[in-house]
Amino acid sequence: MGDSRGGAARELVVLGTASQVPTRTRAHNGYFLRWDRAGFLFDPGEGTQRQLTHARVPASAITHICLTHSHGDHTFGLPGVLQRMVLDGARHEVTLAYPAEAEAYVDLLVRLAGPPAGLALRRLPCGPGVAVDAGTWRLVADRLDHRVPALGWRVQEADSRRVLPERLAAVGVSGPDVRRLLEEGSVRVGERVVTAEEVTVPRRGQAFAFVMDTRPCAGALRLAEGVDVLVCESTFLTPDAELARDYRHCTGRQAAELAAAAGARRLVLTHFSQRYGEDVGVFAAEAAQVFPGAVAARDLDRFALPARRR
Amino acid sequence: MGDSRGGAARELVVLGTASQVPTRTRAHNGYFLRWDRAGFLFDPGEGTQRQLTHARVPASAITHICLTHSHGDHTFGLPGVLQRMVLDGARHEVTLAYPAEAEAYVDLLVRLAGPPAGLALRRLPCGPGVAVDAGTWRLVADRLDHRVPALGWRVQEADSRRVLPERLAAVGVSGPDVRRLLEEGSVRVGERVVTAEEVTVPRRGQAFAFVMDTRPCAGALRLAEGVDVLVCESTFLTPDAELARDYRHCTGRQAAELAAAAGARRLVLTHFSQRYGEDVGVFAAEAAQVFPGAVAARDLDRFALPARRR
Repeated sequence: MGDSRGGAARELVVLGTASQVPTRTRAHNGYFLRWDRAGFLFDPGEGTQRQLTHARVPASAITHICLTHSHGDHTFGLPGVLQRMVLDGARHEVTLAYPAEAEAYVDLLVRLAGPPAGLALRRLPCGPGVAVDAGTWRLVADRLDHRVPALGWRVQEADSRRVLPERLAAVGVSGPDVRRLLEEGSVRVGERVVTAEEVTVPRRGQAFAFVMDTRPCAGALRLAEGVDVLVCESTFLTPDAELARDYRHCTGRQAAELAAAAGARRLVLTHFSQRYGEDVGVFAAEAAQVFPGAVAARDLDRFALPARRR
Repeated sequence: MGDSRGGAARELVVLGTASQVPTRTRAHNGYFLRWDRAGFLFDPGEGTQRQLTHARVPASAITHICLTHSHGDHTFGLPGVLQRMVLDGARHEVTLAYPAEAEAYVDLLVRLAGPPAGLALRRLPCGPGVAVDAGTWRLVADRLDHRVPALGWRVQEADSRRVLPERLAAVGVSGPDVRRLLEEGSVRVGERVVTAEEVTVPRRGQAFAFVMDTRPCAGALRLAEGVDVLVCESTFLTPDAELARDYRHCTGRQAAELAAAAGARRLVLTHFSQRYGEDVGVFAAEAAQVFPGAVAARDLDRFALPARRR
C-alpha cells in the first residue's frame, strides 16, 4: 500500500504494475519519481499517458525518461508520452536514457512520436556508469541480466555533511558566523580557528533504485546498495522459480533477498505476472518472509521519500 | 448508451472514445466490430490491448485491423495488440488495412511489434474501393478529408433476397421444393415454372460505417449511405465549428447531418475533445437536434447489430 501523501518533494508514483499482460486492475509498467525539480519516468509501458492523468501528474513534469530494455511492456507508452509533452507545450530539455544496444529500437519509438516540436529531446545511449551528473544528484546505470541487454537505474543524491547544533554551541559559533563557517570551511572564534568538519557529520545522500527486468545479479545488488526505496520486479512466485530463471526474472523471494543483501530501507515489488490473478498480496507475503515490510505496489500507489535530516 | 446484450453475432464494442488527449473516463480510440466469424479492430489507440481485457474480447478474435490514418491516438495500440495476439498463440491470418500513404508509418508500428511468430499478418495498403471481398461481406474504403491522408471504412453484407411465405403459399410451393426453388432459381409446379424472383423480395445487406478523422466530405457520405450503424467522429461542438474546420474534424451537428443525409439507421458519436469535460451528453444533445436518437458512446459500450430478416 502506498502512502497517501501527495505532492511530496520526493515521491514515487506507481503508474502500472503488470508484466507482459495487463489485467483489469494492473496497467502496463510506468513509474514516475518526483525528485525536487526533476521528474524521472521509468519504463513507460502502453497506457502511461493516461495513467499519468489518473495520477494527476502532468507530462510536463518529466525531465528524464529511463528505459531498462527494449521490450514493449516497458516502452510502448513512450511515443504517447512524448506527443503529450509536445501537445502540452513543454519546451524544456528531456533526457531519454537507455541501454546503448537498444539504439535502433529507441529510434523506432522516437520516430513514431514524430517531430518533438519545441521539446529538446536529448537521447542518451548508456552503459554501466554515471549517466547524468546534476551536481546535487547523479543518475547511475548498472548492468542487469535479462534476455536482451538491460540496465537498472539509481538516482543518488550527493553526499554532504549535517550540522550538529550542540557542537556549534560548544565551539561558540552562532548568528552569521554559521553560514560563513559552512560556506568558507572555517571561521575564527577568538584565538582559534573552527573548521566545518568539527561541527558537522557526514550525511549520506538519499537514493532510489529501479531494478527490472532481471535475474538476481551483481549489478542489481550494486544498484540497490543502501537505497531508501528499491523498486524491484517480482514477476513470479517461488513455486515458479524455474520459469523465473528461464525467462530471467525474479521471484518475490529473490527481490526480497536482493533488498536484504543490499541493505535497502524499503522494498516495493511490481511487474507481476497475470498468472497469479488480481491479488498481489501473495507477492508481498512471500517477500516479507525475507524482508519484513516488503510492499506489493498497486497502480497509482504513491510512496514518499522523506528527506533525510540536513 | 450501448445495448447491454453481450455475445451477439454482430456487435460493436467501443474500447475508447477520446480524441488526442485521454481523460479519466475516456481511453484512446479503439473499436471492435464482431461480424459473425470475423472481427474488425478499427483504429487501435494506446491502451487498446487493456481495453480489450476490460471488454472481455480476446485478441485472438481479431481477423482484420483497419487504420484510418497515421496519427498516434488511432494507432499507438497496434504494436501491443499484435504482440498480444502472438502471445495468445493466434495462428490465423490477420489483415492489416490502411491508407497506402501511411506505409512507412505502419512499417514503424509493425517493426516495433517484432516478429509475428506464427501470426500470418497480411499488410494491405489501400486506396478508395473494395479492400477485401469475403463473398458474404466486403470491406470498402473511401477517402476522408483530414490533415493527413485518411480512409474511412465500411463493412457491407452482400445483398440477397428474402422469401415471402405468403407468396410461396400462393404459388403452391412447399416442402423440399422451397430449397430447390431457391438454390436452382426455379421449380415446376404442375404446368408452370415458378421462379425465385416471384416468391422473394430484394434484401439489402447489413452495413456498418466507420468515419474518422475528417471534415464533412463526399467520401464520408458514400461510406455512411444507408448503414445500420454509423460510427462518426464528433471532436467538437458547434460553437467551435471554426476549430473543427481548421483541424479537419466534425462537430456533433455535422456528424448528425452526415447521418441524416446518408439515411443511416443509427448514429454513434465518439472521438470527443477533452475540452468539454467528462460528460459527453452535450454531443448527443447537439446531434439529436438533427438526427434524433444520436448516441454519444462511452468506453466499453456495446451496440448490437440485429440481423435483418432473411
